[in-house]
Amino acid sequence: MLTLDKVFDAQTVLKNIIRETNVVKSYGIAPDCELYLKPENLQITGSFKVRGSAYKIAMLSAEEKKNGVIACSAGNHAQGVALAATKNGIKSLICLPDSAPISKVEATKGFGADVCLVEGCYDDAYQKALELKEKEGYTFVHPFDDENVIAGQGTIALEIFNDLDNIDAIVVPIGGGGLISGIAYTVKQIRPSVKVYGVQVSGAPSMYNSVKDGEMECLQSVSTIADGIAVKQPGVNTYELVKEYVDEIALVTDDEVASAILALIEKQKMIAEGAGAVAVAAVMFNKFDLKGKRVVALVSGGNIDVTSLSRVIDRGLLNSGRSSSLLIELIDKPGQLKEISRIIADCGGNVTGVHYEKGNTESVNGCFLRIEMETRDFSHVNLITQTLRDNGFKLV
Amino acid sequence: MLTLDKVFDAQTVLKNIIRETNVVKSYGIAPDCELYLKPENLQITGSFKVRGSAYKIAMLSAEEKKNGVIACSAGNHAQGVALAATKNGIKSLICLPDSAPISKVEATKGFGADVCLVEGCYDDAYQKALELKEKEGYTFVHPFDDENVIAGQGTIALEIFNDLDNIDAIVVPIGGGGLISGIAYTVKQIRPSVKVYGVQVSGAPSMYNSVKDGEMECLQSVSTIADGIAVKQPGVNTYELVKEYVDEIALVTDDEVASAILALIEKQKMIAEGAGAVAVAAVMFNKFDLKGKRVVALVSGGNIDVTSLSRVIDRGLLNSGRSSSLLIELIDKPGQLKEISRIIADCGGNVTGVHYEKGNTESVNGCFLRIEMETRDFSHVNLITQTLRDNGFKLV
Repeated sequence: MLTLDKVFDAQTVLKNIIRETNVVKSYGIAPDCELYLKPENLQITGSFKVRGSAYKIAMLSAEEKKNGVIACSAGNHAQGVALAATKNGIKSLICLPDSAPISKVEATKGFGADVCLVEGCYDDAYQKALELKEKEGYTFVHPFDDENVIAGQGTIALEIFNDLDNIDAIVVPIGGGGLISGIAYTVKQIRPSVKVYGVQVSGAPSMYNSVKDGEMECLQSVSTIADGIAVKQPGVNTYELVKEYVDEIALVTDDEVASAILALIEKQKMIAEGAGAVAVAAVMFNKFDLKGKRVVALVSGGNIDVTSLSRVIDRGLLNSGRSSSLLIELIDKPGQLKEISRIIADCGGNVTGVHYEKGNTESVNGCFLRIEMETRDFSHVNLITQTLRDNGFKLV
Repeated sequence: MLTLDKVFDAQTVLKNIIRETNVVKSYGIAPDCELYLKPENLQITGSFKVRGSAYKIAMLSAEEKKNGVIACSAGNHAQGVALAATKNGIKSLICLPDSAPISKVEATKGFGADVCLVEGCYDDAYQKALELKEKEGYTFVHPFDDENVIAGQGTIALEIFNDLDNIDAIVVPIGGGGLISGIAYTVKQIRPSVKVYGVQVSGAPSMYNSVKDGEMECLQSVSTIADGIAVKQPGVNTYELVKEYVDEIALVTDDEVASAILALIEKQKMIAEGAGAVAVAAVMFNKFDLKGKRVVALVSGGNIDVTSLSRVIDRGLLNSGRSSSLLIELIDKPGQLKEISRIIADCGGNVTGVHYEKGNTESVNGCFLRIEMETRDFSHVNLITQTLRDNGFKLV
């Protein structure tokens, strides 16, 4: 049974393992409310996950500790279990599908775990973990559906209340539901008037659907940039806790998540992964009634691959008119690139790419010119395209 | 005269204006030493600059406050002065060259300053600021060469000592020298055994050259991605303070700075601007003797334009073999792209761009194929290029 005592106990146990992350006030991300961020992306291992794993592991019996723990994950949970086990001086084995990115495998090993690469997908790795648990006597550490894991995540609520008074609402990402279960349970025991809002992505709405329809559902597939919360099915315990203690759940799109990641970079100098940014996205895009309220949004993690980060930034730049791409139909005569370059430069645009492309132009001698530019905003893009049109160029 | 009393006084005065930024332990950036970061990129306005400006402004007489302050900057200093003035309830005017990026102008206005756009370059804006100071009676807030500004920056050392014991060295960026003067002076008064190391970029080595040659030098030009410390000449006061209190100064290259920015993103989930990352770059690339030492590197600011950030990431990915570009000479026959795609996919590479290019190939019917890919590291790139060669393809 989850109790408030367990959450307080977890806080004491975690004292020398985790970082206490202080809430920071945010300027300029959500002008309509007073927004604070709880930056668990700055937590050790780059995610809140270490809290639950570390409390779970600390609560094991001496016998269980001797046998070590096993988990199955290619992400934040793996690193949390690895670090928590190492800090408790016990053995950990993490099963991963062999398609897992090398960087994640290395990070997990770096925190002291042994890694077992399993041929196939996540489900194969999971089966292998269960099999090894039976055979070798490891304790399996579930990523969310476990009361000690949930109690560990609940310590986040205690820290928030320690930092800040008169909170109206706390907004929390939902994957399997362990994080929000711990937070919502703790909040409603201590300050029941504080609203707890959950956020999922529209590409993986398992808890959202389950709560809406009143029965636990399993999605056929999930697809989102927020891979940390791409979970097909809620936990049995977390489903019940969310139903009882969470006030409302909303969905955000991948594009909204990308905008939130970019806003956190620009306004807050922080890196969030997709799952880590969904609560901020929900606040930015007004998914809950938060006008004039004092709100804490949980940034749950920051483990985003820089390759993905680069794509998110590029997308965000395009979405906000700060980069753009023009396709201009040319008739084949000398001096046209020079004239186009002059117009763009005079308008203050910065050319970053030029390609000639053949294609189905009006004239047989024609071709297409693709120009990539850095621009200030959409009105700047419009100024450039209009000036090109005014000078007789045909934009496609 | 700079005194330790002033630094302590500044700490009290700044209490309700700035954030106290706590040092965070860093894992994996510099394995040879015990590295902590002082994250002034998470400071209000995204940079330490607000400390010095706010103390300077608080120390003005009632008469001076009534007349307001003026400054000249397109960057962190402008935002620091704007916020500090607003928090003290006084007027501020910031002179900027009219070529300043719109985002910086908007940010400065956002903190409550009036902005005066001056035709021309930085020097023109500076002249205009001096002129307005004479005419309108504003107090000019110098970005670094002012004892109250220096005392304000010195509060960073007090906070570091408050957070951490047994420090061996503190590594600090140098532009005009205000930041390191305040820190070095404070450190040497309180704990003289702690080393203070300064870092400049090789594209703007004004303080480095001046100290090395024993006389103040003025650079003809500066060129670096660390625009926040692209200063042509040290201050008169800061030059003397650096000579007396700083143990050593080193230079880092722009590529080293880019690697440090990328490391801070990946390992620490933090955004640093170029100037903000030079101290970390110096630690990463062993510019000082820090082996086995307990070191604090100051991350001085995080105001990097996302467009530049995107370029830094792209460069970092190329530099570490995580993205790469192949040029393959083809003879013009069907099925070659298919075969190349198969080989790359089998090796686990992810194609992100394909271009056919004409060129001076051996056969008249030949062409060049440029392939852009995401890869894991250089050995992965080598695997792909070797496999392509083994299959008879000619890589240029």
